[in-house]
Amino acid sequence: VDPALKEANLRHLRRIEGQVRGIAAMVGSDRYCADIITQIAAVRESLHSVARNLMRNHLQHCAASAMAAEGEARRDMVDELLDLVGKIAR
Amino acid sequence: VDPALKEANLRHLRRIEGQVRGIAAMVGSDRYCADIITQIAAVRESLHSVARNLMRNHLQHCAASAMAAEGEARRDMVDELLDLVGKIAR
Amino acid sequence: VDPALKEANLRHLRRIEGQVRGIAAMVGSDRYCADIITQIAAVRESLHSVARNLMRNHLQHCAASAMAAEGEARRDMVDELLDLVGKIAR
Amino acid sequence: VDPALKEANLRHLRRIEGQVRGIAAMVGSDRYCADIITQIAAVRESLHSVARNLMRNHLQHCAASAMAAEGEARRDMVDELLDLVGKIAR
Repeated sequence: VDPALKEANLRHLRRIEGQVRGIAAMVGSDRYCADIITQIAAVRESLHSVARNLMRNHLQHCAASAMAAEGEARRDMVDELLDLVGKIAR
Repeated sequence: VDPALKEANLRHLRRIEGQVRGIAAMVGSDRYCADIITQIAAVRESLHSVARNLMRNHLQHCAASAMAAEGEARRDMVDELLDLVGKIAR
Repeated sequence: VDPALKEANLRHLRRIEGQVRGIAAMVGSDRYCADIITQIAAVRESLHSVARNLMRNHLQHCAASAMAAEGEARRDMVDELLDLVGKIAR
Repeated sequence: VDPALKEANLRHLRRIEGQVRGIAAMVGSDRYCADIITQIAAVRESLHSVARNLMRNHLQHCAASAMAAEGEARRDMVDELLDLVGKIAR
């Protein structure tokens, strides 16, 4: 993994952890449901963007050599990628 | 908000906070991208389920009286609900 | 249902039907996969927007009276709405 | 493209075209909004599955050689794949 990307992801995840704590505080103090749902949507979006960064890295580095191979290695990687696409899509 | 639901949401969010820390640890120790993406998808799913619980509470309690009204109050609530549906859908 | 909204939805659906035929023609003439996937995404987005129009109408008209009621009628409507939110979210 | 997959996709798309016509008929005869939304969700799901089939084919055939290359060709393909993942995710 590119060290700059890794550092960016870690920073991103620390901020997300703080946001999740913030959501718990909103729930604890009975804030308006719609505001909490909005905040949850923002955190889900942030997590999605970390997943996209990892997916880019995965395609660029891990997947590339398996895709270059023929036969089973490529087929397994295609299955894994489709599985990841399905997970990211949800 | 129903106290039992509130407690369940808080427990859920504490677990999610721990999972986010776990994802950061996975990134920090260069774990396989596909495994990290899978874990991120699980946390997004957990957040989605908290959002759904809040949406149920919102519809059952906050939205109901506005929906019962005629005219602008109802229209505003419908706009808010559609906005929330869009946020949850992402 | 508001007649103008109904007419707009029917127009929208006729265009979508034509787009689906267009996608079949793309598949039939072996067009580049990425272009076909892009076109499928556009049609899914159009269908989503028809569903949102119907959801607005549903909330504004059908759901409002059930939400105004207390007890089981409201609970059933909340369940139905959450079910629809889940379907739209997918 | 594998001829069997192409035939399956064409069959699938013809059925989807019929389903879209069916939804228009439901709208035309003022059927219950929730039933129409459910039907729209089913068609969107069917389109998603055609897109997944095409994505599998794309990864297996078109993407593989670009991924095997180094430098710009691979980078462009990774960008295209990420773009497609984003489109499928919506």
